Parts: sequence; C-alpha cells; structure tokens
Amino acid sequence: MPVQGEALIGALVRRGDTVAVAESLTGGLVCAALTAVPGASAVVRGSVTSYATDVKASVLGVNAQLLRSGGAVQAEVARQMAHGVRRLLGATHGIATTGVAGPDPQDDVPVGRVFIAVAWDDAPGVPLDEVRMLDLTGDRAAIREQTVTAVLELLESCVAEGRE
Amino acid sequence: MPVQGEALIGALVRRGDTVAVAESLTGGLVCAALTAVPGASAVVRGSVTSYATDVKASVLGVNAQLLRSGGAVQAEVARQMAHGVRRLLGATHGIATTGVAGPDPQDDVPVGRVFIAVAWDDAPGVPLDEVRMLDLTGDRAAIREQTVTAVLELLESCVAEGRE
Repeated sequence: MPVQGEALIGALVRRGDTVAVAESLTGGLVCAALTAVPGASAVVRGSVTSYATDVKASVLGVNAQLLRSGGAVQAEVARQMAHGVRRLLGATHGIATTGVAGPDPQDDVPVGRVFIAVAWDDAPGVPLDEVRMLDLTGDRAAIREQTVTAVLELLESCVAEGRE
Repeated sequence: MPVQGEALIGALVRRGDTVAVAESLTGGLVCAALTAVPGASAVVRGSVTSYATDVKASVLGVNAQLLRSGGAVQAEVARQMAHGVRRLLGATHGIATTGVAGPDPQDDVPVGRVFIAVAWDDAPGVPLDEVRMLDLTGDRAAIREQTVTAVLELLESCVAEGRE
C-alpha cells in the first residue's frame, strides 16, 4: 500500500486536509497503510477500530437501535462510523469500513459483503458523504486487503474531485 | 504475525479475557495482527490509534500536562494509554505502543526508541501494568513490525503468568 498511501498523503497535505479512520473488518490495516508513509503525521489524526459492535455505538456514536435492528454490516453504519470518527478526532475527512471478512457469515450477511464510506463537511453543519457496497472474494486476508485499497481509492477520488 | 496471534487469541479465549489496543507509531498494526486470526472477535474489543499527540489526551485520557512537558514518547504515556484504552473499550487488558519509527527524531527522542505497555486490573480499582523501553534498529517498517511483536509478547507473558 505504500505507493497508494504516498500519493494520497501528498494530496491531503497540499489541500490542508486531515483524515480520521473508523475500522471494523480491516482491524487497523487502513490506518497502518496511511501511517506507513513518512510524514503521515501531518494529515493522519488517528483511528478507532470498533471491532465489537457495541463500540461502534459507545465510541463512534453509531445509532444503537440501527445496530440492534440491522447488525453491524450495513451502509448506514459505515456512513455513521465515518462521520463519528471525523468528529471524535477532529479531522476534515472521516473514512470507514464494515463488512464480513470470514470465514463465517455474520448477522446473516455473506462473507465478502463490505461497506466503505468517506465523510466530510461542505460547510459547518452540512455533512456530506459517499458510501459504496462491495462484494469481494478470496480468503480473510484478501478481503481485508481489498477493502483497504477500496476505501483509500474512494478517499482519493473524493479529494481529487474537490468534494469536501 | 498470524502464528503468534493465534496462540495469544487462544490463551485469551481460554481465560475469558478481552483486549483493547492503543497505538501510536504502529498506526493500527497491532490490532490488525490480532484480528488477522479468525475468531478474534471473541476477545478483541477494538483499538484507538492516537497518532496526533492531542488525541492521546482527548480520547485516551493521557495527562495533557505530561504530554506538554515530556512529549508523546515516554514510559508514563504508554502506561496511561494502556489503562485509558482498557477503560474506554471495556476490556480486561489494555496494551499500548508509543515511539519514534523515523525517519526523523521526534521531541528530541531518537529513532527506534519505543515504549510498550500492558495494563489490567488485579481487582476493581487496583490498576496494574508492565511497561518496557525498547531501542530498535532498522527502517520505519522494521521498527513498526518489531514493536508489534514485542507488545504481543509482553501481553502473552502477562497472560501466561496469570498476572491480571
């Protein structure tokens, strides 16, 4: 991931943007990829891995009723994780991953189903975001790695298009 | 890290323990190593990467005056990070990393100087911990990887000796 990370960190530095990461199935790999780049401290505020479902509510502020009714793997959870971590860590952009890395399905969701999100503010109090659903194949490690690449690409596209 | 992670996750499951991770220079790699193991969700509550120094205070509860006076890389910061994340995420054990991965020194601390900590409660309100200083060599990636191995070994030794 270093090459992808370097370009992204460079773009964020040029724009004066900062990033915060909320992870579930990736378990820390997204923030690890970003911080593999020397100088990442200029833009990376930090991350929260909300591996246990209740941590998504207690730390990131995801709606607890939403989690109870629909489980941890849904588009709206990814969206709320991205906004929650952006606010918690004081970043211009929040990014999030939630999904099923396997080997077993979770909450009736099949292995490889993943949601990724990028959140930012157009103006104070005007939350904006992009959310994507992915259906990935491969083993646990492959699904995690593909998720890292996908969410960093989504952030890169949002930054490149100046949508913030 | 998968083999090391598997043995550790197995030991934690057998003891009914749970773990929360606070990371700085490792940027998410410690929690990523733990969650590479299928079934990790039984014991891994989650993690906070407090990459920006102020996040160590605002999210993990590290003493802000301590950070101002001595910087982010000191034994007491690692100790407070481990206790803070344990409380924040509701785990029996908290583990933490802080240090200088390079390529440049930070807060007058040389590249490769790292502190790792494990924290747990002997009884409610009786905080216990182990903190270690490491002087590591190699490039940024090598220093991060050695730190991951060292903190997981420290946790393993604390769990094996039944010190909790």
